Order: sequence, then C-alpha cells, then structure tokens
Amino acid sequence: MKPSIPKGTRDFNPVEVGRRNYIFDTIKKNFALYGFQPIETPSFENSETLMGKYGEEGDRLIFKLLNSGDFLSKVNDTLYSEKDSTKITPKISEKALRYDLTVPFARYVVQHRNEITFPFKRYQIQPVWRADRPQKGRFREFYQCDADVVGSKSLWQEVEFIQLYDAVFTDLGLKGVTIKINNRKILSGIAETIGAEDKLIDFTVALDKLDKIGEEGVKKEMREKGIPEAALEKLQPLFSLKGSAIEQLQSLRELLINSTMGTQGVEELEFISKTIETLGLRTASLQIDVTLARGLNYYTGAILEVSAPAEVKMGSIGGGGRYDDLTSIFGLKDMSGMGISFGLDRIYLVLEELNLFPETISENSKALFLNFGEQESLYAMKAIKELRVNGVAAELYPDAAKMGKQMGYADKRDIPFTVLAGESEIEQQVFTLKNMKTGEQRSLDLTALKNALKS
Amino acid sequence: MKPSIPKGTRDFNPVEVGRRNYIFDTIKKNFALYGFQPIETPSFENSETLMGKYGEEGDRLIFKLLNSGDFLSKVNDTLYSEKDSTKITPKISEKALRYDLTVPFARYVVQHRNEITFPFKRYQIQPVWRADRPQKGRFREFYQCDADVVGSKSLWQEVEFIQLYDAVFTDLGLKGVTIKINNRKILSGIAETIGAEDKLIDFTVALDKLDKIGEEGVKKEMREKGIPEAALEKLQPLFSLKGSAIEQLQSLRELLINSTMGTQGVEELEFISKTIETLGLRTASLQIDVTLARGLNYYTGAILEVSAPAEVKMGSIGGGGRYDDLTSIFGLKDMSGMGISFGLDRIYLVLEELNLFPETISENSKALFLNFGEQESLYAMKAIKELRVNGVAAELYPDAAKMGKQMGYADKRDIPFTVLAGESEIEQQVFTLKNMKTGEQRSLDLTALKNALKS
Repeated sequence: MKPSIPKGTRDFNPVEVGRRNYIFDTIKKNFALYGFQPIETPSFENSETLMGKYGEEGDRLIFKLLNSGDFLSKVNDTLYSEKDSTKITPKISEKALRYDLTVPFARYVVQHRNEITFPFKRYQIQPVWRADRPQKGRFREFYQCDADVVGSKSLWQEVEFIQLYDAVFTDLGLKGVTIKINNRKILSGIAETIGAEDKLIDFTVALDKLDKIGEEGVKKEMREKGIPEAALEKLQPLFSLKGSAIEQLQSLRELLINSTMGTQGVEELEFISKTIETLGLRTASLQIDVTLARGLNYYTGAILEVSAPAEVKMGSIGGGGRYDDLTSIFGLKDMSGMGISFGLDRIYLVLEELNLFPETISENSKALFLNFGEQESLYAMKAIKELRVNGVAAELYPDAAKMGKQMGYADKRDIPFTVLAGESEIEQQVFTLKNMKTGEQRSLDLTALKNALKS
Repeated sequence: MKPSIPKGTRDFNPVEVGRRNYIFDTIKKNFALYGFQPIETPSFENSETLMGKYGEEGDRLIFKLLNSGDFLSKVNDTLYSEKDSTKITPKISEKALRYDLTVPFARYVVQHRNEITFPFKRYQIQPVWRADRPQKGRFREFYQCDADVVGSKSLWQEVEFIQLYDAVFTDLGLKGVTIKINNRKILSGIAETIGAEDKLIDFTVALDKLDKIGEEGVKKEMREKGIPEAALEKLQPLFSLKGSAIEQLQSLRELLINSTMGTQGVEELEFISKTIETLGLRTASLQIDVTLARGLNYYTGAILEVSAPAEVKMGSIGGGGRYDDLTSIFGLKDMSGMGISFGLDRIYLVLEELNLFPETISENSKALFLNFGEQESLYAMKAIKELRVNGVAAELYPDAAKMGKQMGYADKRDIPFTVLAGESEIEQQVFTLKNMKTGEQRSLDLTALKNALKS
C-alpha cells in the first residue's frame, strides 16, 4: 500500500518550500521595516481559549486533540450511555489546534500584558488548522501571515498598513494591486440615514453584490429584505459614486450629513486617502469602495481588502481592518487596534500564474563535484570546503559512479555547474568547471574557481 | 480568569523568536551550503503512518486528533459498551500529530520516490509533538532540525556531516564542541568477540556508563547481566583505549581481529577520522568514543553525538547516524542513508548561558520618530518612507502623546535612536537624531539621517 497524507494537507518539495519562503521572507522583511516584531504561540491551545470564539460553525471546524491515557475513565457512565459526540467531546478533549492567529494573539496580549509595551506591534506567521471540507485552494492546514498593532486608535496605523501592503506587493514584483478601503462607520451611517439601522447586515450583503448583479439587482434584493422605497431613493448617490477619491468623499459627506457616525467615517477616510496621496504609493493604488463589507462582526473602523491585478482571476489576496475591542473576550477592555493579513496560498498562485518567482530563490547547490575515486574526492573536498566557507553551496557526488550517471544527477537536480578533477587536474592543481547549460568548459585554479562560482 | 496555555507548550516573545531564528538561519544556511534542500510535511499524518513506529511508549505519546462531526456514530455498540480507551481510539481518531521528522520523511520518500532524484539530500525544520510529562527542558511541542541523505552508502556522507556540525557550531560562535563518533559494527564486533552477541544491548548499556561509574562499575554491571569473566578479560583493551585516534584504532583493530563486522567498523572509522584529519575542522574536535551507543535499534554504521563545550553542563546538542533501511516500513527496500539532527532548545540554552547571542539579531526598529501632531507626523512619515525603502526599520509613534511617554516607549522597546522633528526642524528641513544610549543629539538633513541610520 502506497503511503498517503490526510485530505486537505500537503507535502512541499524543495522548489515549493523555496517559493513559499521567498514570499514569507519578503513579508517578514517589510514587517520588520515597519516596526513589527514576531511572536509565536503554541500550535494547540486549551479548548476553552478557542471554543465559542468563531461561532457554531467555527466550533465544529476546530480540530480537537484527544486526551492521552485512559481518557474514557473521566466520562461518567450516565453521560457515556447517551453516546452523544457533542456532549462527550469536552470530557475527552481539553486541547485544540489553533483555528486562526487572532484569538491566540488576543490571549497572548492578555496573558503577557504586564511584559508588553503598548502600542504593541506584532506579526505572526504560523500554520492554522480547520476541519473544512477540502476543495481546490482550500486546505485543512495553511499558513496565516498577520500583522497587528494594539493599544492605539491613531489613524496613522491605517496609513501605515496601506503602505505596508504596497511595499510587500511591490517587492514581490506584483504591480497593479488595488487596495480597497471602506469604513464600517460609513456603512452604519448609510443605514442610519436611510432608516435601516436594524437591517445593516442585509443592507451591506446586498450592496456587496453591486459588482456582480448591478444597481437594479442590488435594489431588488434590498426591496426583498424590506428596505423601503424611500430609503432606496436616498441611497441613489451611492450608486453613482464616481470620480476621484476627493469627489467621492464629497458625495458621501453630503449623503451622510445628518449622521454623526457616518460623517466621522468620511473624515477618517478623508484623512487616510489624502495622506496616502501626499506620501504616494510605489505600485499599488488605493480605491474607496463603499460596497466593501468584510468582517462586519468585528471591524469597527477602516476595512481593507487587496485585489490581485485585473489580469488574474483570484479572490482577495489580503485584508484587514480596525477593531475596537480585541481582548475583552479574555477580560481586558479598551484594547483598540488594527491588523492586516496576507493570503499566502493565493499570493503563491498569483505569482506562479504571472511567472513572477525569481529563478534563483530555491536553495540549490551551485556546483556538483564529480566523484572519480578516493584520492580525487579528497582533492575535490578540499576545494568544496573552501567554497562553502566562502558562501558557495557545493557538493561532492557521494559515489564513484559512471560519469553519465553523475552528470544526469546534476542535470535532474538543476545544479548549474559541475566540476571535474581527475588525475591530470590534480597534477596541474586545477579544476575543470563545466557550465551545464552551455556545455562550456574551463580549466581554473582554486582561486579562479571560487571567483567564477561566487559571481 | 487569566488565560493560559497548555502545560508543556510555550509562547515566544520577539526576543526569543529572534534568537531562535538566528539559530535556525545559521543551520539552514549551512544545510544549503552542503547541498541539502528543504521539504515540509503536514503537521498531522494518517494514524497508520505513525502508529507502531516508535514502540508501545511512543504510540502512547502520540497526540491523536478527534474525528470531526458525529464521531461516535462510527463506533459499534458492542465495542462502545466496553468503554475501553485503547480499543476505541482508532474508531474515533484517524489522524495524529507528527512525533518526529524521520517517519514523515520516510513516508515522503516512498510516496514521492518517482519525483525524487537520489541520492536525496533533504533537510526539514518543523515542530513535533509528544504527550510526554512536561518537565524542565522537555516540552510537548518543540522543533526538530534534521538533515538526511538517502540513497547512498558512501562514507563521504559521514565526513560531510561531521564537517557540517563543525560549520554550524563555528558559525554560532560555539567553540570547543566535541563530535563523538562510534560505529555500530564495532559494538557488534566486540559483542561477537567476547561471545555475548545475544547481550549486545545489556553490554552497550553498561559500557555507556563508563564515564559515570568507571571501569569497575561497568564490569560489575556486566557481570550482573551474565557476561562471563573470560569475556570481561577480553574486553580489557577497551578500558585502556588511549592516545591519538590512530592509536585507538590500532588497539581496536587488534581486539576485533577475528570479527569481520568489527574489522569493517574499524576500517570505516579509520577512513572517516583520517579524512577529517586531512581536511581539518574549524573549531570542533572529533573524538572516537566506543561507549557511544545511541539509537542502536536503527543505526547500523556510524553513530554521532555532539557535546557542548566542557564548561557548560548540558546533554548532547546533536546526534545522528547511518541507517541501512529507512523506508522499508513503507514498502521501499534498500534505502540506506544517514542523518543528523540539531537540538534547538539545548543549543539555545548553551548560547544563552555563554552569552553568545549577537546583540543585533532581534528584529527591532532602528529609529522611533516622535509624534508632535499631524503636520509634523506627515513630515516624519516622508522621511520614514525613504528610510524603509533604504532598508532601515523605522516607525512613527502613533499618537501625539507627551514626549516623556514617547521617549519611554523607545526606551522600553530598546529602539536605539529617536528622531525629533518639530516646527523649527521642518522650517530648516532637518531632523534631530537622538542616540538613546548616550543622549547625544545631532541635527541632520534627510540624506545625512539616512546614512547615520544605515550604518
């Protein structure tokens, strides 16, 4: 029987690991440039830390660890006789795999609040696990990359996170991403203005579909949800938001003139977009999008979402927002903050589709020294040692196999150079360097070999 | 209730993450220089992949994942009524967290054998989980760092792994580590020579204690295990192994003259130690140690163990060996190989104790720009943007708080410089750079500021 791995999980080969690390490293480099520092939390948490934090569906999708030892001895006979999976779970499982990085971060902040200097800028890049039905592009184990700052309500954070997205995608060579921005307060303000505060979710769900089903479709859905005709008329300016950010903000300001909350949202958005305009982005563009309504159950201010360049069909490759209250679930109040995340797997697919992975990122040896026997290998190993100390990855073919086999190995491993050193090379104290692509051969002494392979 | 994490797990703060990454990066860099390439495997495997591979105790210590959904519905009533934890486990759990990196690697090799070019040099640095009783220095989640090569019996691998240990510990600044080497064939040869082949384990367990209980203690234990007096007499040369490697090997050769296997072991050891002597190590030393008997149930040739410098009391900080047969548990025969591992947690403790962590490794901002209000912040942000593009980590204090508070923040965060830019600086288009350690202040234009912070 051929061994296999569980559904929804993946093995990564050296090329894939190299490419994933390239994305991680680019993100990490920029996180650090922006003053974020890494933390790590355990893969599993006490169940009570996670359960009840992601809704009923989330609770179901959390991977639970079976207690070790004679775990059934802790289940009393009456409960046991019910044979009820849901009821028995907390008795036989006390730990669970992390479902995201946000709840463990909140737990971390509360647990270590006396050691932390606030505002606390942390990033975290670790795998999470979800017992979701596996499907194309959805996995049971995947990495999340989050940066958050907690302990400040300053709008400069919003500005910085937009710059950070721009910096990462620019460094990845992914030009033309769109950073869409909205503000929860604007959505609330609109709902307030049209007298549909109690229908905020219905209203935003419908508005979110503007791209797909058009103005009439959205209005139809709103009507079906019981939003009155008079309210829809008031909404009209929203459907004709056009022009520059400044013009759009002006329309929004007029629409929301009677809502304190809405006006505050417009002012926040105005500060952010004006500042970004002054500072300039490198390759991304910032776009106001009042239909953007992700994370409404926890975002309280800015809402961000990043779209890949138009030529790639792909959902959002990043998103985030401002939240007023990260840690009150663990008893610590007034911890406002903001965070963003990067969608690693989708970014990977986008870079792959657009052929944007640099060729040189996978960790691979620069040269394979052929093995012609013990004395020749010792001669080779002296050179290899010298190369490695000088930062050149090199290796000796371990066995004195036929030359064709050794060359084939270099070829299959994509090693760009082979080095041949037999009796005559040893006599002249040189090495024959062969370029595996062009076939070109050169005879070089050790210093020249070092220089040739270093460049 | 203050939130907490499960026993035996750890949160890592930015300083700890920085130090751990420093060790990982040093190891990875050298793995790559030696031609090893990274792979990654899923955190959990199908239970049948792991169970039965680590002995009974291992099976108990493997963390099992509870099936999702109504997992009890799959348990038939008769079995259920027995309420037997051991018997019910395979019915309610089909996946388990990886226990080490070796078995997943073996599974990987077999599963992907048609895509792999052999000899396959892979490294893997990932966490593993064990439901061990937590105690000082023993955790339920910890990283393993393994490098293995499979598909070659060449002794050059042994040579390379010894060099690799030397390279990593030299780069970490940890001078004076001892790489101890033995060979399973020598141990077998000794057992054969003294007529105690059936007592190989008893014999090596006793021999392993030579350091602790001395010659007489070892002999006493051997007698108790039923090893006859005549055999002990034959062993005598073992207790008086002294002098250079060459002299020790000569004694061993004489002792094992009648054992083919033992003689082969001596010859292997001879090749390895002579070659290492010719090539030279940078800071480590290689030491023959016939009492070394780790991993006897799978190592078939060389056995390696690395000891920290004598001034630190610490168990082994690395170990490895040659195995004949990694993958036959998954149906692929004759896959000989060799591997080593680095003990991250212990290496961390050693570096900490000897104060060997460089000061600059933790990712931290170089400069904090103080926030004096909106216009001043915009001026600051233009400079910050420029600094970041030039690779200098810098940040703006997010709120226009009192100066003392902002300075205190820089201080607590260990940020080495603050930058002040108020009305007069803006007028002169300069920045005041303050060294937080010395208190020294300088007035610099943007270019000079960039140069000052880059160096």
